Amino acid sequence: MSGEKVKVAIVGSTGYGGVELIRFLLGHPEVEIVSVISSSSAGAPITEGFPHLSEIVLQNLEGVDPKAIAEKADVVFTATPSGISGKLVPELLVVGLKVIDLSGDFRLRDGSVYEAWYKHEAPDAELLEKAVYGLAEINGDAAKGADFISNPGCYPTATLLGLIPVLSAGWIDPKTIIIDAKSGVSGAGRGTSLMTHYGEINENLKVYKVNKHQHIPEVEQCLSLITGEPVTVTFTTHLTPMTRGIMSTMYAGLNGIHTEEDLVELYRQYYEGRPFVRIREAGKWPATKEVFGSNYCDIGFAVDSRTGRLTIISVIDNVVKGAAGQAIQNLNLMMGWDETTGLRLSPVYP
Amino acid sequence: MSGEKVKVAIVGSTGYGGVELIRFLLGHPEVEIVSVISSSSAGAPITEGFPHLSEIVLQNLEGVDPKAIAEKADVVFTATPSGISGKLVPELLVVGLKVIDLSGDFRLRDGSVYEAWYKHEAPDAELLEKAVYGLAEINGDAAKGADFISNPGCYPTATLLGLIPVLSAGWIDPKTIIIDAKSGVSGAGRGTSLMTHYGEINENLKVYKVNKHQHIPEVEQCLSLITGEPVTVTFTTHLTPMTRGIMSTMYAGLNGIHTEEDLVELYRQYYEGRPFVRIREAGKWPATKEVFGSNYCDIGFAVDSRTGRLTIISVIDNVVKGAAGQAIQNLNLMMGWDETTGLRLSPVYP
Amino acid sequence: MSGEKVKVAIVGSTGYGGVELIRFLLGHPEVEIVSVISSSSAGAPITEGFPHLSEIVLQNLEGVDPKAIAEKADVVFTATPSGISGKLVPELLVVGLKVIDLSGDFRLRDGSVYEAWYKHEAPDAELLEKAVYGLAEINGDAAKGADFISNPGCYPTATLLGLIPVLSAGWIDPKTIIIDAKSGVSGAGRGTSLMTHYGEINENLKVYKVNKHQHIPEVEQCLSLITGEPVTVTFTTHLTPMTRGIMSTMYAGLNGIHTEEDLVELYRQYYEGRPFVRIREAGKWPATKEVFGSNYCDIGFAVDSRTGRLTIISVIDNVVKGAAGQAIQNLNLMMGWDETTGLRLSPVYP
Amino acid sequence: MSGEKVKVAIVGSTGYGGVELIRFLLGHPEVEIVSVISSSSAGAPITEGFPHLSEIVLQNLEGVDPKAIAEKADVVFTATPSGISGKLVPELLVVGLKVIDLSGDFRLRDGSVYEAWYKHEAPDAELLEKAVYGLAEINGDAAKGADFISNPGCYPTATLLGLIPVLSAGWIDPKTIIIDAKSGVSGAGRGTSLMTHYGEINENLKVYKVNKHQHIPEVEQCLSLITGEPVTVTFTTHLTPMTRGIMSTMYAGLNGIHTEEDLVELYRQYYEGRPFVRIREAGKWPATKEVFGSNYCDIGFAVDSRTGRLTIISVIDNVVKGAAGQAIQNLNLMMGWDETTGLRLSPVYP
Repeated sequence: MSGEKVKVAIVGSTGYGGVELIRFLLGHPEVEIVSVISSSSAGAPITEGFPHLSEIVLQNLEGVDPKAIAEKADVVFTATPSGISGKLVPELLVVGLKVIDLSGDFRLRDGSVYEAWYKHEAPDAELLEKAVYGLAEINGDAAKGADFISNPGCYPTATLLGLIPVLSAGWIDPKTIIIDAKSGVSGAGRGTSLMTHYGEINENLKVYKVNKHQHIPEVEQCLSLITGEPVTVTFTTHLTPMTRGIMSTMYAGLNGIHTEEDLVELYRQYYEGRPFVRIREAGKWPATKEVFGSNYCDIGFAVDSRTGRLTIISVIDNVVKGAAGQAIQNLNLMMGWDETTGLRLSPVYP
Repeated sequence: MSGEKVKVAIVGSTGYGGVELIRFLLGHPEVEIVSVISSSSAGAPITEGFPHLSEIVLQNLEGVDPKAIAEKADVVFTATPSGISGKLVPELLVVGLKVIDLSGDFRLRDGSVYEAWYKHEAPDAELLEKAVYGLAEINGDAAKGADFISNPGCYPTATLLGLIPVLSAGWIDPKTIIIDAKSGVSGAGRGTSLMTHYGEINENLKVYKVNKHQHIPEVEQCLSLITGEPVTVTFTTHLTPMTRGIMSTMYAGLNGIHTEEDLVELYRQYYEGRPFVRIREAGKWPATKEVFGSNYCDIGFAVDSRTGRLTIISVIDNVVKGAAGQAIQNLNLMMGWDETTGLRLSPVYP
Repeated sequence: MSGEKVKVAIVGSTGYGGVELIRFLLGHPEVEIVSVISSSSAGAPITEGFPHLSEIVLQNLEGVDPKAIAEKADVVFTATPSGISGKLVPELLVVGLKVIDLSGDFRLRDGSVYEAWYKHEAPDAELLEKAVYGLAEINGDAAKGADFISNPGCYPTATLLGLIPVLSAGWIDPKTIIIDAKSGVSGAGRGTSLMTHYGEINENLKVYKVNKHQHIPEVEQCLSLITGEPVTVTFTTHLTPMTRGIMSTMYAGLNGIHTEEDLVELYRQYYEGRPFVRIREAGKWPATKEVFGSNYCDIGFAVDSRTGRLTIISVIDNVVKGAAGQAIQNLNLMMGWDETTGLRLSPVYP
Repeated sequence: MSGEKVKVAIVGSTGYGGVELIRFLLGHPEVEIVSVISSSSAGAPITEGFPHLSEIVLQNLEGVDPKAIAEKADVVFTATPSGISGKLVPELLVVGLKVIDLSGDFRLRDGSVYEAWYKHEAPDAELLEKAVYGLAEINGDAAKGADFISNPGCYPTATLLGLIPVLSAGWIDPKTIIIDAKSGVSGAGRGTSLMTHYGEINENLKVYKVNKHQHIPEVEQCLSLITGEPVTVTFTTHLTPMTRGIMSTMYAGLNGIHTEEDLVELYRQYYEGRPFVRIREAGKWPATKEVFGSNYCDIGFAVDSRTGRLTIISVIDNVVKGAAGQAIQNLNLMMGWDETTGLRLSPVYP
């Protein structure tokens, strides 16, 4: 590789996704962070809100100015809320920046589906078409050389990586898929609300948006592409008293008889050469802490011979593989680098 | 009521179930605790291991001696581990004590099923027959005047109270039931192991005993009694980083069309006059903290018209409604008292 | 006691102090809650924001109207923020209500000290004079028959109950007092801010307002009354990742030689007949969970013969003994009832 | 640097310190892990107990055999318990290995002091003499080229880095030092006991070993070296409901008048060129989460003009700067590398 580093900017640097991008990009050998951007805190040092970056990130936050970004940067990450990205990304693309968007605005191909679930106007259809859905282990080839990648949602990442191999193999009945998903609180972002208030979350387990979470159509869109016909899932989201981590516990009826060992083999083959997906051996299941702070997705299985159902357990760190880590993995694919570049940090345990 | 209080003894007073029995029984107007018993700590003041009881419980722990217990007490709670109760309870019954057993040893009618799931020898068949299964809101009539009650498991309590009304009504297909259950760590007891080690549990979400938890046959036995034919369920247990609380998120295919409002009405009618089950209005779901420290079971619903599935969310405090509280509710039924006597403590919030 | 219950109203029913008042008052045999009041949520059922009270509290929240309150109630608790109480309490007193105020507005005798620490205008001096400082175990006689009680702060309660006996005895040098205090997050109330955001608090330990907390002059005012001369303390406040609980770890130079046993005896004598203060035996120290959900203050000691210093550890549940519980204790004293009436709930453990 | 990597072995690879050594050493460019060693689990894959290392560490655990280690490795980390290291280290040194010991066995120069606090026999005096106390920012010169380094304790690291500059400057009175220290639970290791049981720790704050912690003489030894006369401190240790993190809140009487700005300048000069100590500006204090997962020690100050006392707040991640991270920093110094090699990971936030 040449000595010249790729220059990246981060819009939304004061959210949890933004500071996690910074954490990983600081150790990325091919990249230089040239601008940390926040519309709400422009002008302030980033360490004012995030003292953990003291003496590490010396830059002040800048405002959102596409032309100014294009003068400094080659690639921009937009870790901005849904609704904001939809408007900002076109402005960034038009000035020649490559964009990796972490919001939900460009994940759904069909604008009307977007509007039904997100409850606000969809971005331009052409742009929805152009966006490469960056589920790296599944759609990585499309990401190579792309200019604009839409980074998957946290729940969909854990869920789809867990479901796609067995669904592709035709071993489960797509009509029977039930997803019981649990997330740590960081998934709700750094905004303040009763939903993120310590007194309401600590020592508590909640469900929310049952059957209504905006990640449902994202999951269904991908599963439908696999099967070639519409797949509809039941999907429940829970808020768990922890900061990081997603677990998707997934249920489906098995077509025919398949042992846990068969599943392990199927998945290990499917993810051969993709180091961020790790398959537990038969009889073992992953826990969220086993991927904490890392870009891994760990998957395990249980076959219930009594009911003929398969249970799949898939875990990620929602801030890493579910957001910033996968976005950097997409950067790596986009630039033609090894997909693990800058991402080989082991989970933090305990 | 007469001035004479009923005398109770607690075997297993140094477990979490035991001290929770003490907490509630201290405020029970009809009862006097005459003996706190622990085979492992006999002779020591209970406050040595549980300083929160300082100046509240002055008694020393006593050893397990059925005859001595019978001389002091009318009723004994056995909050002893599975395998221990099976041997101890016959000795307590034979000396004339009424017994409420909190272990799993007498919940399954069929000894061979017990042995398949619990992996040790079942108690005598006659005793299994004699034990009244004390799921108070369902089987309360049988508890009235009984001498021997087997207190339900924590997972089965949340699960069965959530499923039975809709299954009884024939609104769901019993072949489609999937139960995704989550528990706080106190359910694993006070014994020390990596499974209860703070460093392994905090900021972590785990599955365990998938399809193999010993509460599965207890759930199936009860559901089968409702439908009149064998019901088999898929049942996953999760360990959540909190001390107390169980949530059962349950899925089933609906027979016909039923709205959330229909379900609310069905359940409110079913549990009419049973104050410990509270049904959330349509569009609202309970969280575990909303029952923390109390004997309530709170239930909510979501109907997914897209998939024709019903999602039921049922929460309890595993130490109260899932153990000590329900045991006292059974005492109340056994003695002919109002079932809420001594149990009308509101949830502790936050 | 007569059959007629005392009628109480609660202003600020949608804060953590307010709902904790409700939890205890529901079990208080001499009291009836006639009105739950919240300026921000008037008209709504209290269960909308606090579903844990479903089917327990059926009333809707009412607005703040002193005359309307006086028509219904005999006594009113004002669990309102500092600055609000100062204006509201005079209006409640003038219509003939007895008032127990949980804010900091009436704890300091000297209005200028109040203004220096609270940074807004002090209430009328006459009212500051009239308010009885309700540190029940210390100042309980003054509370008897009072019309207006100012309930102590959470930090001062733990701190003063821990310091006063040994300071009164002259065993420590008042110039050497250092207080290292730690609180759970509920002390910051239910308002949303980064300071109560789960992602910022979980797995974190912070200091805040070092040397500047508004409870410092409250502690110093009381200690100065004990010694008869101005006492100045060093006082640090920490935010701990838990919902409830305060621990004050206090340091002072000993005058002369006193063993831990001496201290235990001194304190047990000092608090004789006051059941809510429990003194640990020599060599044992209390933990916050040992008072969780209860009105106890537990205290332990360590004498360091190497340095001649005494360490005192004092714990309370900040929501109970540090707020609602002590307020009810003050109601009991005010009305001439046993001070434990309605407050004999054991700590919730685990 | 040459292409040849330094070969390291880790004894005690199945403790929390051991796996944290692995996490950092995997990213260390000059080092190769040639052996992971555990007396209790020899023969098993390390991933059996630590699945988070799946597909990252492929080696099986080996037994403790000094000769075999010496054949493979150049340097060995002993992350073994106190009492074990004392016996093992001499065997490792004698076969020519360089040793960095993470236990407390070689930190105290005076064997009799060791025996008084650790309650078992001290290692050989000659070895105590030979061990370099590896408080890197203070004693780093001695570590350069050393063969045997004793890595400091977690509490002493946070405490000494916070106290030494101001004590060296003569700005505080050494007779007045009080240290109120708080630790996360990982400091107690992975062993199971009630002290690490989730149900006992969660939502709880405890003191333990008040005035008796074995880190007290370690702190005093270092402070006495600074002042040239014996320093005795009051030192309290608390267990906080979090996994990682230590905060030392320290109090001392100021000699003369010094502002917070003066202190910031003093410390920034003192730690100039030592990137792992970060000094907060006046009026700001660090929180433990701001160093989570990293090798930083962050320090802040409060001067109380009312009492003439200084409060110093110092935080570290006990597993990193308090154990594995500082051990690697010592390796870097030992080998003559930049002290930050392999350690430049940012804190994980949130």
